[in-house]
Amino acid sequence: MTTRETPVLLLHGYWHGAWCWSEVLPRLTAAGTRALAVDMAGHGLRARRPAAPTARPFDPAALAAEPSAADAELDEAAALFIAQARALGGGAPVTAVAHSMGGNVLTRAVEEEPGLFAHAVYVTAFMPASGVPAAAYIFAPENEGDLVQVAMVADPLAIGGLRLDTPSPDPAYRQLLRDAFYGDVAAVVADAAIALLTPDAPAGVAAGATTLTADGWGSVPRTYVVCTRDRALQPRMQRTFIELADAAFPDNPTTVHVLESSHSPFLSMPDELADIILKL
Amino acid sequence: MTTRETPVLLLHGYWHGAWCWSEVLPRLTAAGTRALAVDMAGHGLRARRPAAPTARPFDPAALAAEPSAADAELDEAAALFIAQARALGGGAPVTAVAHSMGGNVLTRAVEEEPGLFAHAVYVTAFMPASGVPAAAYIFAPENEGDLVQVAMVADPLAIGGLRLDTPSPDPAYRQLLRDAFYGDVAAVVADAAIALLTPDAPAGVAAGATTLTADGWGSVPRTYVVCTRDRALQPRMQRTFIELADAAFPDNPTTVHVLESSHSPFLSMPDELADIILKL
Repeated sequence: MTTRETPVLLLHGYWHGAWCWSEVLPRLTAAGTRALAVDMAGHGLRARRPAAPTARPFDPAALAAEPSAADAELDEAAALFIAQARALGGGAPVTAVAHSMGGNVLTRAVEEEPGLFAHAVYVTAFMPASGVPAAAYIFAPENEGDLVQVAMVADPLAIGGLRLDTPSPDPAYRQLLRDAFYGDVAAVVADAAIALLTPDAPAGVAAGATTLTADGWGSVPRTYVVCTRDRALQPRMQRTFIELADAAFPDNPTTVHVLESSHSPFLSMPDELADIILKL
Repeated sequence: MTTRETPVLLLHGYWHGAWCWSEVLPRLTAAGTRALAVDMAGHGLRARRPAAPTARPFDPAALAAEPSAADAELDEAAALFIAQARALGGGAPVTAVAHSMGGNVLTRAVEEEPGLFAHAVYVTAFMPASGVPAAAYIFAPENEGDLVQVAMVADPLAIGGLRLDTPSPDPAYRQLLRDAFYGDVAAVVADAAIALLTPDAPAGVAAGATTLTADGWGSVPRTYVVCTRDRALQPRMQRTFIELADAAFPDNPTTVHVLESSHSPFLSMPDELADIILKL
């Protein structure tokens, strides 16, 4: 049994958990790679849930008003991810793969500890420019038309978090969640995934910004996986991230792969995504 | 970085998913082991959910009457697990760790393909005698006093599945779930875990039995991790499984470890559990 030298650490995006990599992990480990998916601060087994989505009786006004249960900040999320990377690699560099808002965490972690990361892989992920919070891109012109903003059921500024009504039985709302995140995923799998989402994503993770340096984030090889059918993070936004990074660090250009997938290639194209990771 | 030769495959129990091993996996991978947790048929990203638990308005009568959404059988669950083991090991043996009802799947898989398993580890798991369905032990005198039967919100025979009201906001019911599964787990982590459970467990997985042979299941080394504070699978029942196995296959006795834990040592004692697995 051959074993690749560099282990792979996988980080999900907002609302998701380590569970979302369940189709990619078997492909990486079958190839002899040590691979680990972890929960971001405030997610998965670290999630804090609001009461309103599962209250009986259900009250839409409470859903819009209950303060967010999620309170993690980027500092905390990055510190956790750095600890996870150090543990996996035993201090030696790991390949880190981040999806969606996981990219903001990965960027901070790599800037702080570039020696722990052999390669940074952004899978339709936020890859912000120096000093710009990821949250700013959610509302950027390049991201116009995304379906996630439409799916929010509370004002993020008012409740302090980004809330989706993940247990909603409303067929139109459920279809919106499927379209936003899982457009090319079988409906039955998308429904299973929606049931595992945490309703509240911590606003603080997107609100944090990172000052990028040539010796820090700029020194680590990076790959971007563009997902052309994404309706959560628009393809035009993804391309802009790459342009901004390559303009800032032209000596370390982004390697770009393109998948004709929704926001969730880990579910719709696990073979292709695992192949990209294994061939780094 | 040293890498252990034999990879580790982890299988959860009823209602849970691969996510429940999130505290054990980092400890195994940090030690250089290739480790993978997988979803059982009908669970995690393979789950099928009933509508009643999240219906608005909520209707307790519908909760008790809606037919089970889960329809996996032991044959299917074992075939899936065998495929997962074969992929992870590339055909070479893996160490397989099963929790709770995962044990019934592991037993069938090992009996069918003993060459794929270097070691079978049962963590407070069903380890049935030859030809006895795991379901029979749920109602055995040795399991009397378990809290899972109390937590059922529908007649398993009537709906064709084992239903928990996992999104229930009722404080007493939520405490019952915590006591049944997570007695020694921090309440906030237990709540995060409860939110990830699937309400319907497929009755067919427990209903299936396996004929054990000396050249099959009886030929593979096995370890049992007794959890003395378990209220889901009573310690007396766990001890009985070991006695029955050792009586049937005295030349291959069970190695026994004891943890003073609830049903979920993967959350309350991940260091100790990982240590047992790593030292096999």
